[in-house]
Amino acid sequence: MTAVPPSAPPGVGEAERVARAALSRVFEPGDPRQTVLVAELGAEALCAHLLAEADLAGVRTDYGARLAATDGAQELERAARRGIRFVVPGDPEWPPGLDDLYGVAPVQDRGGPPVGLWVRGPVGLHELAGGVAVVGSRSASEYGAAVAGDIAAEVAGAGLPVVSGAAFGIDRAAHVGAVNAEGRTAAVLACGVDRAYPREHARLLGHLVDHGAVVSEAAPGCAPQRIRFLARNRLIAALTGSTLVVEAALRSGALSTANWASRLQRTLLGVPGPVTSAPSAGVHQLIRSGAATLVTSGAEVLEAVGRPGEHLLEVPRAPERARDRLTARQRQVLDGLPVHGGARVDSIAVSAGMGVVEVRGSLDRLARAGLVERDATGWRLAAAGRD
Amino acid sequence: MTAVPPSAPPGVGEAERVARAALSRVFEPGDPRQTVLVAELGAEALCAHLLAEADLAGVRTDYGARLAATDGAQELERAARRGIRFVVPGDPEWPPGLDDLYGVAPVQDRGGPPVGLWVRGPVGLHELAGGVAVVGSRSASEYGAAVAGDIAAEVAGAGLPVVSGAAFGIDRAAHVGAVNAEGRTAAVLACGVDRAYPREHARLLGHLVDHGAVVSEAAPGCAPQRIRFLARNRLIAALTGSTLVVEAALRSGALSTANWASRLQRTLLGVPGPVTSAPSAGVHQLIRSGAATLVTSGAEVLEAVGRPGEHLLEVPRAPERARDRLTARQRQVLDGLPVHGGARVDSIAVSAGMGVVEVRGSLDRLARAGLVERDATGWRLAAAGRD
Repeated sequence: MTAVPPSAPPGVGEAERVARAALSRVFEPGDPRQTVLVAELGAEALCAHLLAEADLAGVRTDYGARLAATDGAQELERAARRGIRFVVPGDPEWPPGLDDLYGVAPVQDRGGPPVGLWVRGPVGLHELAGGVAVVGSRSASEYGAAVAGDIAAEVAGAGLPVVSGAAFGIDRAAHVGAVNAEGRTAAVLACGVDRAYPREHARLLGHLVDHGAVVSEAAPGCAPQRIRFLARNRLIAALTGSTLVVEAALRSGALSTANWASRLQRTLLGVPGPVTSAPSAGVHQLIRSGAATLVTSGAEVLEAVGRPGEHLLEVPRAPERARDRLTARQRQVLDGLPVHGGARVDSIAVSAGMGVVEVRGSLDRLARAGLVERDATGWRLAAAGRD
Repeated sequence: MTAVPPSAPPGVGEAERVARAALSRVFEPGDPRQTVLVAELGAEALCAHLLAEADLAGVRTDYGARLAATDGAQELERAARRGIRFVVPGDPEWPPGLDDLYGVAPVQDRGGPPVGLWVRGPVGLHELAGGVAVVGSRSASEYGAAVAGDIAAEVAGAGLPVVSGAAFGIDRAAHVGAVNAEGRTAAVLACGVDRAYPREHARLLGHLVDHGAVVSEAAPGCAPQRIRFLARNRLIAALTGSTLVVEAALRSGALSTANWASRLQRTLLGVPGPVTSAPSAGVHQLIRSGAATLVTSGAEVLEAVGRPGEHLLEVPRAPERARDRLTARQRQVLDGLPVHGGARVDSIAVSAGMGVVEVRGSLDRLARAGLVERDATGWRLAAAGRD
């Protein structure tokens, strides 16, 4: 998003962590100016600058005023008391994938890596890198929700974490699918990790706090706002190695996550649906344009996201049929029979381009295999021979 | 299919045409040995050889015996009396696309260009080159049949012929869609063009004889046989510039046509469907593997098959919303409002990172646009502002 290269991870000295906690309260999530300034100055120095800045009339700038009213150490302590940790670069839990956000231009003025992430729950952020983000419409169809749940269950059941946004529709189906498979799942929120949004998902979020992870760039207590949803989408894409879109209407938030995944060189997958279904239109566009690979099952997702040689998938085949067990010349005789009605041996021999004697022998064998039968009009295909 | 290059189109002298008509009766459709021999010797010389050949006991070979019993001139005359023409290379109506079959290896012993095609109906074979083959499952779902019919209607309505195989399911839906749009449509059969197979489609085929075209490599009177279906699929792919697969179970005949289309470097398109629907599994595999491009509408088919610049399609977009007409800074204010509940001007100013005075002015303008509203708790998003 900027020309600034990711410098060596800043030390996780307490002062830097405290400064970042304060900045997290002052800047909106995904404000790319913050990213640039922190990369150039470090969080401590940036805080000092902001606190010292005043306008011509000697009045503190907005940011300075807000920073003066914020106590980073207290933020961290209050969070810790509620089981919330603040993960910053250099922490063992910091996922290097977030630093990929340095290389990608902002969208709608949101971009860059976060100064830190607030996390609740036993699953570590670094575990999510091998996981799959499952995203899609809030107004999902029954079809979409069912497929999202099934795929999430298969992915989580295979040991890969499922990451989503805890919204209605596909997000919820993905989390629930992973929970039912007793796999790991994490929700990245647009509000503070201590808030349940949407309210209807309070129990689900409570479960993730106990067994998975709830993650946010916004400081605890922050309300969900549009700008925070936009910023959140980039984190879902950056935290995981692959993003799967299951139903996304044209211009939905899920497409913004997909766009981030593409730009971050993540694996992008899409589940197709009926072309008559509006919630599938966005996914079809992603597949048509070549941005996403079409997948139809959890097994195909695992194949796409696995390390080379892992989760290898056989190309689906129909079950073997009696026909498959014939020799080439027996098949030739079978193919010489008319589709409807019967035929005499000599006419079948002409069709098959073979001698009458050989054809007669083959017909007996085909009859024993149940593929042909004989009646008054001659030899005809049996039901099994039609397949 | 062979090392033999397509020689200059053989003359359409009457003797060559008569010889080809006779060969068409003697060889099974798509017998690649015939292709090689006709290319090397010409049809007249091949007939002479076959008639002269005898085995050690002086008995005529199979082919010689059958050829001796066949009168090519009479075949042509009898066909002509029934409105059936026999189109051979060099005829103005001969589609050069059929000669592409020289370059492609046989599949299941079927391959190579036909020695000629038997045709009934006013549409010329050469007209089909710019057309679209619409193929798919005989056991199509209602969804698949509806989509095939809609797309065929749009394609045929735009002036491009629709080619299919007159089978149940997708084939029928495609022909009927084209007929309803008063467009051109042609059926390529596995039996003689004078036979109605399946019987249930006798009326449809009668309509094509009067207004479209019915085409076959098999001589008039020939019954539908498995081997002829295999041979027929290659013709559907070769006669047209593009093949669209709408529903194809794994290992269906439609996939054999798709495979021919790929190998002939034709445009291959596929309509997705629910991943839970078996008839869509084959199409999903074609799209996944990159063999086919996903399409969701007739417009997308037309864009894919048109000449450059023709049938250009706008990327589908959701309709414009009130939000789109705002300035960047007005949008910034709008994004500063909480998703639920109200907020005071100063809190919105903090969220938006803007001054209170400017935010106050913007809120008034946003209220006039119906995007925000004010109540006792402060400013909140109106329904239109949530979109």
